[in-house]
This record gives sequence, C-alpha cells and structure tokens, in this order.
Amino acid sequence: MNSPIDFYFDFSSPYGYLASTRIDELAEKFGRTVVWRPYLMGAVFKITGRQPLVQHPLVNEYSERDIARTARLYDIPITFPEKFPIASVAPCRAFYWLNETDTEKAKQLACSIYKAYFAGGRDISKPDTVADVVVETGFDRDAIETALQNQSVKDKVREETDKAIERKVFGSPYIVIDDEPFWGFDRFDQIERWLETGGW
Amino acid sequence: MNSPIDFYFDFSSPYGYLASTRIDELAEKFGRTVVWRPYLMGAVFKITGRQPLVQHPLVNEYSERDIARTARLYDIPITFPEKFPIASVAPCRAFYWLNETDTEKAKQLACSIYKAYFAGGRDISKPDTVADVVVETGFDRDAIETALQNQSVKDKVREETDKAIERKVFGSPYIVIDDEPFWGFDRFDQIERWLETGGW
Repeated sequence: MNSPIDFYFDFSSPYGYLASTRIDELAEKFGRTVVWRPYLMGAVFKITGRQPLVQHPLVNEYSERDIARTARLYDIPITFPEKFPIASVAPCRAFYWLNETDTEKAKQLACSIYKAYFAGGRDISKPDTVADVVVETGFDRDAIETALQNQSVKDKVREETDKAIERKVFGSPYIVIDDEPFWGFDRFDQIERWLETGGW
Repeated sequence: MNSPIDFYFDFSSPYGYLASTRIDELAEKFGRTVVWRPYLMGAVFKITGRQPLVQHPLVNEYSERDIARTARLYDIPITFPEKFPIASVAPCRAFYWLNETDTEKAKQLACSIYKAYFAGGRDISKPDTVADVVVETGFDRDAIETALQNQSVKDKVREETDKAIERKVFGSPYIVIDDEPFWGFDRFDQIERWLETGGW
C-alpha cells in the first residue's frame, strides 16, 4: 500500500492554484491519494527571509506573464487578481473546518475558493467572501460563520502551519512523496516520473 | 530567417550550468541559433532585492537536493561546490574576450569553465583558475592574463550586464525567444513547445 502524497499550498499562491487543478488526477494515475495541506506561507517567509516573487521589481512582471502563459498551456482559467498577495487565514480555516468531517468535500471547497480568487477576482481574504463560497458549495452560512471564529479551528490552522515548517516546507505548491520534496508547479514532470519509476 | 535565441546566464548559477549543457541542442532541433550572454547577476540582485536561493534557510537545503536530482535526471555531471556562490567577473571577462574573435570557441570555453566549477570543484572566481581553464582549452596563457586586465574587456562585461538589466533580465538561465522571456531550466519544456508551435 503506497502512502499518500502530501500537497502543501497557500491560498494566495497562483502556482498553488495551478497545482490544485492537476494534483489529484496525476496521483490517481499511479494509484496514489493526496492529502491536501493548506498552510500560511507568510509564517515561512519570516523564517526564510524571502518574499513572494511578485513583490520584487522585474521578477513581478515576468511572474505575471509566466503564470498566465502556464495557465494557457494547461487550459486553466486565470485572471490575475488586482489585490495580491492576500492573507489566506480565512480560507485556511474554512478548509480545516470542513476537512474535519469530509476530506473530499474540503478539497472541493479548496478548489472553489481558489477559483473564486484566481478566476473570479473575489477577495478571499475576507471571511464574508469565504462564507459566500462555502454557501455556494452547499453548506450552511451559520455553520461556516461560527467555524471561522471557532478557537479549535484557529488552533488547527496554526498547528498545521507549525507542522509544515517543522517539515521544512517553505513554498507553494510543495509536494512530498515518500519523503522526497518537490517545490513548484514546474516540478510536475519530475513528480510524474518519480511516481512512475520510484525515483532515480 | 528566424532570429537567434538569447541565452543569459551567470557563471555562478547551477541552473545556468544545467541549461548550458542543453540549450544549443534544443535550439538546433528547430533550426535556431543561440547567442550566449553571460552577465553579472549580482548587479541585478541589488535591483530586485532578491538573493540567490541557496542563501535562504530551508530553501538552500531543498535547492541543493533539487539541483542534484535534476542533474541526475538529465545525466549531467555535478558536484555541488563548497564555495558558493562566487563572484563571476573573471569567467565573464574571459568569455567576452574570446567571443570578440570566435563565438563558437567562446561557448566551448564557457562550458569548460562551468564544468571546472560545477563538476570539478575549482574556484572559477579566481583569475588564475580561469586562466588555467583557458590554457587547457588550447589558448595562450599570456593572452588571457593580459585580457583579464584589459580595460575594454572590463567595460564589455559592464556593458553587457547593463544591457541585460535594461532588457529586464533578472535570472539565470534566462532565455529570450522573439521577445518572449523564459526563466529557469524548468522552462525548457515550454521553450521546446514554444519553438515548435510559435507560441500559444
């Protein structure tokens, strides 16, 4: 029995969004499942001393172009959001709240939240927007509004972020297969080959 | 007649080294030539406010692993140098000195210098080491020793770096095909597709 693949991502990461549209399909091809693990990359930036690519002169222009070009290549809808980057704590809380009871639905919600932001231009840093998406996905507004304020949900997000950092995760997407880490949507070709061959 | 592809790189860049072993072959497949354009990425880091990946905690460990894994995948010899990163001004001067009279031999020299550093562990930041490699490649020691101190060669390196920055080049490898920029060895799949299809 193969162990599941860990998929770390931040809800404000464009390459994380691109990865989210492909990761389960890719894993399934090789009989693997995927555990989705959103976390708060902002906490990591404080440790690594790095900044999101889009906050650097020169790099920012290129990155927007590269993200759009890569999305076109894989036929993934994307419209670069005006507000970027954003705090991703509200979507992260919504995810872990739902994940507690239904991991599949939590994945679907993650996809809907990502799409709302990167294809719909909606500001998912706002708890209200996240609640709207949750309701559109078929859940009760009261439940999510309560959840977003729930202390154990808040703690869960902090714990998952701490655990990611302990595991030396620093990027998005960041995928771990049997202890082998892969950073970036552009490692999907190596991921595919790794799953196929067992490594090299 | 297709215009040549521009290949920007820094001699201290591991992914630039990986790219140097493949770029001409890839371009040739589609009837293209490549102009090699080494430059001093240190000057760009001052503008972008970025640092080499390997200087960040967490990212450095991953990067060394990723570089080794990628090199193994493409069967490119690499031993991560103890001294890293290094100043790349001496190799850059040697390249432009030779490039003035023979662009093909300048490419061969660039490959030999890269190999001396990334496969041989030799400190190519030292003018003496660069002179040794030039001599091994079949040139006169006096000629390269004089060239490394020559003002017009020094100016040429500065000019090429300024021109790269004007063109918004910021990374290594950084490849420009008909005004379309591609950053990183991991964009070689997109480069191949771009050359094949003319873009998307």
